[in-house]
Amino acid sequence: MSEPKLHLTAFMRPVSLHTGAWRYPGAYPDANFNFEHLKSFIQKLEAAKFDAFFMADHLAVLNMPIEALKRSHTVTSFEPFTLLSALSVVTEKIGLAATASTTYDEPYHIARRFASLDHISNGRAAWNIVTTGNPEASKNFGKDDHLEHDQRYKRAREFYDVVTGLWDSFADDAFIRDQQTGIYFDPEKLHTLNHEGDDLKVRGPLNIARPVQGWPVIVQAGQSEPGRQLAAETAEVVFCAPGNINAAKELYADLKKRVVAAGRDPNHLKILPAALFVIGDTVEEAKAKRLSLDSLVHYDSSIASLSSALGTDVSGLDPDGPLPADIPETNASKTSRASLIKLAEQENLTVRQLAQRSGGYGGLAFVGTPKTIADELETWLRENAADGFTVTFPFVPQGIDDVTQRLIPELQSRGLFRRDYEGTTLREHLGLPRPNNKFFA
Amino acid sequence: MSEPKLHLTAFMRPVSLHTGAWRYPGAYPDANFNFEHLKSFIQKLEAAKFDAFFMADHLAVLNMPIEALKRSHTVTSFEPFTLLSALSVVTEKIGLAATASTTYDEPYHIARRFASLDHISNGRAAWNIVTTGNPEASKNFGKDDHLEHDQRYKRAREFYDVVTGLWDSFADDAFIRDQQTGIYFDPEKLHTLNHEGDDLKVRGPLNIARPVQGWPVIVQAGQSEPGRQLAAETAEVVFCAPGNINAAKELYADLKKRVVAAGRDPNHLKILPAALFVIGDTVEEAKAKRLSLDSLVHYDSSIASLSSALGTDVSGLDPDGPLPADIPETNASKTSRASLIKLAEQENLTVRQLAQRSGGYGGLAFVGTPKTIADELETWLRENAADGFTVTFPFVPQGIDDVTQRLIPELQSRGLFRRDYEGTTLREHLGLPRPNNKFFA
Repeated sequence: MSEPKLHLTAFMRPVSLHTGAWRYPGAYPDANFNFEHLKSFIQKLEAAKFDAFFMADHLAVLNMPIEALKRSHTVTSFEPFTLLSALSVVTEKIGLAATASTTYDEPYHIARRFASLDHISNGRAAWNIVTTGNPEASKNFGKDDHLEHDQRYKRAREFYDVVTGLWDSFADDAFIRDQQTGIYFDPEKLHTLNHEGDDLKVRGPLNIARPVQGWPVIVQAGQSEPGRQLAAETAEVVFCAPGNINAAKELYADLKKRVVAAGRDPNHLKILPAALFVIGDTVEEAKAKRLSLDSLVHYDSSIASLSSALGTDVSGLDPDGPLPADIPETNASKTSRASLIKLAEQENLTVRQLAQRSGGYGGLAFVGTPKTIADELETWLRENAADGFTVTFPFVPQGIDDVTQRLIPELQSRGLFRRDYEGTTLREHLGLPRPNNKFFA
Repeated sequence: MSEPKLHLTAFMRPVSLHTGAWRYPGAYPDANFNFEHLKSFIQKLEAAKFDAFFMADHLAVLNMPIEALKRSHTVTSFEPFTLLSALSVVTEKIGLAATASTTYDEPYHIARRFASLDHISNGRAAWNIVTTGNPEASKNFGKDDHLEHDQRYKRAREFYDVVTGLWDSFADDAFIRDQQTGIYFDPEKLHTLNHEGDDLKVRGPLNIARPVQGWPVIVQAGQSEPGRQLAAETAEVVFCAPGNINAAKELYADLKKRVVAAGRDPNHLKILPAALFVIGDTVEEAKAKRLSLDSLVHYDSSIASLSSALGTDVSGLDPDGPLPADIPETNASKTSRASLIKLAEQENLTVRQLAQRSGGYGGLAFVGTPKTIADELETWLRENAADGFTVTFPFVPQGIDDVTQRLIPELQSRGLFRRDYEGTTLREHLGLPRPNNKFFA
């Protein structure tokens, strides 16, 4: 059996990145904060053989104008470790990826919680390392000033060394538990880290056995220069957000090159761009679904964001007319202005539709039938733009049903996606090796 | 129906406080770190209508001589939030008490995780507030020096204010989720804490809805002067370790008096001393079980501890002879020496047995038949020594079966313990009110 080519993780915190998702007809308005719904979602995703259930995270209520905030379905969310541990009990195989910050937490806590989740789930945990870019978070952690970008990445790199070192506190075979002799573990197989670095000082050892996977899978999302370098040195999955296939190919080539330069096997880094999947019986129906979803985005909030992205106040324009050709170029908005103008032209969007598109979900999207989308995904794979995708749903539960019941069978029939899990751990799903213990052969 | 008089929580991290527990014939040697076992234990405790499953915690591998450490079954343990969330899915009513430190964690994290656990469990979370007395923990969190005792309690008091304030970020009825108007929550019902105190600075709001219980139940264990005062002001359950009924009565009266002085209803603090329960068909059989369990404690480690507790090196004595009458009194060992000498006399213990008793579990114990133990518990209740107990098991699973299948029916037949849960939340089990929101009437 050859390894399945495509890897799919489901972006589930929030359950949809589209700000209008919770208002879509038939969608569960409380899906993002209803455990029974989340349980049914992960069970559907596992039945469809997804690699993992992925939780982004924030350490603050997002800083946005109250008119937008009061419309946000993400303002109340479960904390990742409590949710994923609970979900681990109602699933058997699907991976569980939690986001945890290296800027606002302690390596001893992080190492311990991931180790515990990995044991409870029998080897299904992944750590999405973030440095927490939201400056609002700092104010919830006693700091007036957000740690500067390069400083955050420097600390993250050291944090990773400490966490992986703590995971290796015990050798895999340290625990004897001999009731006759009374020896519970072999003290020769316990290592005290004694880390003292620029940013962190942690003695160890960790008070939990080595994780089932050795180390939980390492996920990283940064696309800045230090973010790419951190990924090259440490990540096994990259969650990224290229706007189109050309941007994706550039990022893919750059990251794989950096992985090789770091002395690693490029197959041991899986690059999974995030994309919205909107599926219809016809391409036109899928596009209409998306426009209908976009129409649920609050216009006043989205037109303000559009004006800011274009660098010109467009709130006075006829919302139902086309975007004028003469939007001036400004320094602040060069890239976003050009791509928005191109988008409006290509899809023949009104000012209102453009505002709601970019205010709803402005990123990469696959909109079509199971066949047209499978064609696109195959192209992305073949052209080295991705090793798979981080699937974001337009609304739930219907968006999950569309992907799991319609797209997945099409991908399976083409041999692009597994029909069953071949292993039991997330590392096995992703084709990643189990790391050696740093301190014990 | 009158409220059940007795409240019982099960001390489950570690699954037994007795250091020889894992070696007892028929005991599961890996019980402390085996999710399937822990799942079966909590289901037995719920079937017996226990109030809660209680996890103590440590933020370090305990600092003990390697000869003792390598025999300790607590050296690998699950992290509380990951374990309790997972267990919440396989239970419906029993409370879930997690220990979390105010010295080595952040109030935003703590508030968020308990809120999340409380939502996932439908109102069954409790927070055992500890200030982390183990100086070894500081070395795992970048600090060379452990925070001084009074400083820790001062920070804990402020930490409690911040956490409870964060729990109250949203009014109970803040979430509207009106799909037609697109309003997800009422921004008038969101409160930003803006806390700035001596030790903590936290803006808020918390990014999760108010807990089901309003606030998770507050548990506290400190018995020092600042510990008692913190309990009087904040705790709803006190977990304590008096050595006998007289010490318990003194503590009970003092704590209830302090609660009243703090302007609270004394019934809103439940005092639950920890005790080991060893059950036999006869008192003699129960005592023999205990001696048999004690005999599994490593003698060399326990004789060293005994020498230290007595203030005299007794390792040269005949282990199978009695403790000599002439152990000299020293300044360092006044109380412990006296109580050990009394214990050896009362129970006619050899030097070896005394060492293994105090090295195994030296605290309060009820050893007898279901009837004799029920008599004792009734006395404790009637004489205002306790509102219930924190039950520690001598070994598992048999110790759990003995309590749930033999002692609980005896207590139920006397009307001392509930035959079924009357409510669904831990607050309801304990007869505690749901706190009002500090910011919204």
